[in-house]
Amino acid sequence: MNELALVERIRKLAGKNPGLELGIGDDCAIYRPKHGEDLLFTTDQFIEGVHFRHDLPARAIGERALARSLSDIAAMGGEPRFCLVSLAVSGEQSDKWKLDFFRGLTSLARKTGTALAGGDLAHAEKVHVDVMVCGAVPKGKALRRDGARPGDSLWVSGPLGRPWDRRIRPRLDLAKALRGRATACMDISDGLALDLHRMCVASGVGAELDRVPVASGSTLDRALHGGDDYELLFTLPLGANCPPKTTRIGTIVRGRAGLLRLNGQPLEARGYDHFGIAST
Amino acid sequence: MNELALVERIRKLAGKNPGLELGIGDDCAIYRPKHGEDLLFTTDQFIEGVHFRHDLPARAIGERALARSLSDIAAMGGEPRFCLVSLAVSGEQSDKWKLDFFRGLTSLARKTGTALAGGDLAHAEKVHVDVMVCGAVPKGKALRRDGARPGDSLWVSGPLGRPWDRRIRPRLDLAKALRGRATACMDISDGLALDLHRMCVASGVGAELDRVPVASGSTLDRALHGGDDYELLFTLPLGANCPPKTTRIGTIVRGRAGLLRLNGQPLEARGYDHFGIAST
Repeated sequence: MNELALVERIRKLAGKNPGLELGIGDDCAIYRPKHGEDLLFTTDQFIEGVHFRHDLPARAIGERALARSLSDIAAMGGEPRFCLVSLAVSGEQSDKWKLDFFRGLTSLARKTGTALAGGDLAHAEKVHVDVMVCGAVPKGKALRRDGARPGDSLWVSGPLGRPWDRRIRPRLDLAKALRGRATACMDISDGLALDLHRMCVASGVGAELDRVPVASGSTLDRALHGGDDYELLFTLPLGANCPPKTTRIGTIVRGRAGLLRLNGQPLEARGYDHFGIAST
Repeated sequence: MNELALVERIRKLAGKNPGLELGIGDDCAIYRPKHGEDLLFTTDQFIEGVHFRHDLPARAIGERALARSLSDIAAMGGEPRFCLVSLAVSGEQSDKWKLDFFRGLTSLARKTGTALAGGDLAHAEKVHVDVMVCGAVPKGKALRRDGARPGDSLWVSGPLGRPWDRRIRPRLDLAKALRGRATACMDISDGLALDLHRMCVASGVGAELDRVPVASGSTLDRALHGGDDYELLFTLPLGANCPPKTTRIGTIVRGRAGLLRLNGQPLEARGYDHFGIAST
């Protein structure tokens, strides 16, 4: 299949995308912003041999690549609007593989209201995916990671340390419910310890953990430093109602920015870092 | 340098970015749309061993990766607003290499008013860059490739067939001047013949070429089927003034969509196609 034919098939998978002025097929996609919305932008790479193994099915690759970026939109309290997908494949991937990739991706896109607006196709030695997602929040209502204050309670949306090959469910519904309530929010993509450290550095605070919910079959070490969780980590002002199915894990405290403690002991801000080990 | 430290250096290179509500450092960047603007979105991969050779300096890689996407914004008549940059490098690239990459990119970004809003860093076996650019046009004023009509004159913004290693100058000023004048516009990134074919298919028309401006030192074949030009290809209604420093190359005609002729002879729609040879 040549590029023109492949793009035509992908365009059919993308469907009508009523939210866009112009979708796949021109030099750019066109989006007309709605009145009173702030737009959120994130991009995430998903690379064979780094983020996934060679034998992961094409559909799962497409779905996970989109899910990772949707989790960033959830982390800011956003609703997804559309995505751009860059895909590089080697000669090894068949036409069926390429279409299965887009079938997996568009299936999750439809469920979450994310239009497939465009992208870029190329060849490379290994499969390389990069998915940009645009989301929206009412003006001024984005949840940021720099708003945690001493005295805030600290929460996660689910148990941590789950295996890398499980399905990612971006917490879009919870994120929307946290708008106007959470003082800070982010998703856990590099392990609780490292991501909490980042939130605390951004907010200029420390944190005391007294509970870490460990996923069934996992370990405390994996829950703290493991990786691929994509749960939300957020803070609420003292006395705020706890959202359903979430777990309080500790408290934000005054102190050196980014300093973490677990049950009174120092906790190392170690996690998945592409360029080395981050330390407190 | 760990990821946190590298991101901090990149944030400094990005500067203040007054157009953004929130730049590098959170899960998403935040952009507040201006009243009455349509937003344009494009993404382009730039891959070691496919689009550039291993020995291209890091600064040039950063600059060209951004320039390719800016050219798509120009193709729609847009002004760039901001970009997201995904970069994967192997262990071979030093911290200096990574910073030089961002120095090259942010240097062009500053010249063109493009904020560096965020991105993603990862490891891979080869250098892999993907740059998403968001641009803007006044509502309804985007130049599309599907508006060419029989009788329109056909133009290019400069001589074609230039070597792959030259500097790309996105035609942002010309693009702005073409708003409200050109009936169709696109950039030539895969060769005049293939890209003109695509414009004609989108517009449901054919084209008769009677002149092809060949870059000094190049050949007609390279000008037609060569590749890395990033000049604008556009159509004007009969009798419209010719923009300065552009060349009229032919006329849009009725006929089978996408059918091309050069001086009366059929012209094959052959060019750079990542997934095979496109044919008329």
